[in-house]
Amino acid sequence: MGFLHDGHMALVNQCRSDNEYAVASVFVNPAQFSPQEDFSTYPRDMDADLAKLEAAGVDLVFTPSVDEIYPEGFAAFVDVGPLGERLEGEFRPGHFRGVATVVCKLLSIVRPDRAYFGQKDAQQCMVVEALSRDLNLGAEIVVVPTVRDPDGLALSSRNAYLGEKERTAALLLSASLNLAREIWLSGGTDTGLVKDRMRALIEGNPLARIDYVSIADGDTLEELDQLRRSALVSLAVNIGKTRLIDNVIL
Amino acid sequence: MGFLHDGHMALVNQCRSDNEYAVASVFVNPAQFSPQEDFSTYPRDMDADLAKLEAAGVDLVFTPSVDEIYPEGFAAFVDVGPLGERLEGEFRPGHFRGVATVVCKLLSIVRPDRAYFGQKDAQQCMVVEALSRDLNLGAEIVVVPTVRDPDGLALSSRNAYLGEKERTAALLLSASLNLAREIWLSGGTDTGLVKDRMRALIEGNPLARIDYVSIADGDTLEELDQLRRSALVSLAVNIGKTRLIDNVIL
Repeated sequence: MGFLHDGHMALVNQCRSDNEYAVASVFVNPAQFSPQEDFSTYPRDMDADLAKLEAAGVDLVFTPSVDEIYPEGFAAFVDVGPLGERLEGEFRPGHFRGVATVVCKLLSIVRPDRAYFGQKDAQQCMVVEALSRDLNLGAEIVVVPTVRDPDGLALSSRNAYLGEKERTAALLLSASLNLAREIWLSGGTDTGLVKDRMRALIEGNPLARIDYVSIADGDTLEELDQLRRSALVSLAVNIGKTRLIDNVIL
Repeated sequence: MGFLHDGHMALVNQCRSDNEYAVASVFVNPAQFSPQEDFSTYPRDMDADLAKLEAAGVDLVFTPSVDEIYPEGFAAFVDVGPLGERLEGEFRPGHFRGVATVVCKLLSIVRPDRAYFGQKDAQQCMVVEALSRDLNLGAEIVVVPTVRDPDGLALSSRNAYLGEKERTAALLLSASLNLAREIWLSGGTDTGLVKDRMRALIEGNPLARIDYVSIADGDTLEELDQLRRSALVSLAVNIGKTRLIDNVIL
């Protein structure tokens, strides 16, 4: 979706190192935003994006217009079922339908051997893996670790929206995930207790409003009663008007 | 879906004549049948199908199992919107979702330059065209004219279900389409009148029960008030327990 940061560039670098030819797409996909979301104000900077991609050695950049991707009469949509209805899907109805549809199109147009997605959007990675596998799109989905600022904030184009106090509040996402990991490493097992402590930490800041805190099976996204290896701890928090997500795998 | 007849072989022959390499799939797709439909009894004869395809010079036949196409955990579906909800879609909810999904998979697996479908399933042709175009699957969809028995009955694997009296009743489908064409050629314009006369002709036989008689725009499938060039006249009629469809383009 452009407005590239070092998280995106980690995808590019991994792709360049794994493959002979690297393609990037820059496309802010209207189909994955609901009407009240930030499609029109989502940050864009094509010149800077192209300069970064060129400097990183990308061979081809695909920058379609909205009309090219969704011409008049466009009607087909891809749905990935329950995986797209939990967590983000619950708070952003239709979001993963929009993601799956545009990724299906991009994979069909480019036909890559591998496609690179960031772990920060963990559920998106799972949706895209299901998409490519179920519809035989032929792309291996490679998940690249989340890139963080030194203070722990996961990189996101939406971080550009944050004022100074908001940025401090946003650190509560990674801090609460660290708290979950510490409880797990020190032998805790009760997910209800962990989620309560994460919530309490976040809700201590008046700028933060939680959408969800989840500890779920890393394959099905079903909520777990007990902490276990490879569980996905994830959360979505509104910091002022900016909605942020983050996650960690135990 | 196999149980090949001369309608299928017309697709094969057209494909062979247009291309260097011809691939056929034989797969009775459970996703396009609803629970009360004839998936389990749908006629199958793989040995005869393979012999016909080999004799016709097909280079490769893909005969996947249901588990290969829909493995455990399969969840993705393709939906083509309103085009799949009219006519057949109204009487067979989910049918075109099943068609679009399996054709998406087959086109993604085989990646053909062209894919051949029969005009007898006119709406299916339109759905597949929308699918390939909207999801950028890269296949040109070629529609091949309906093949008919000398008495006018459109070839269909389901004709195998018909008893002698039923087969006679089934001729009312093509007869009513001929009636529509004659009214059009003699200057008639009122689609309501044409549909009434088609219905009256069919309902004269007690073995026939109409699902729909439609005169619709050939691109959008919206019902028309006036006959016009390139309108799609289509119908679905149950002959005893056998559901048949047919159509003609003015």
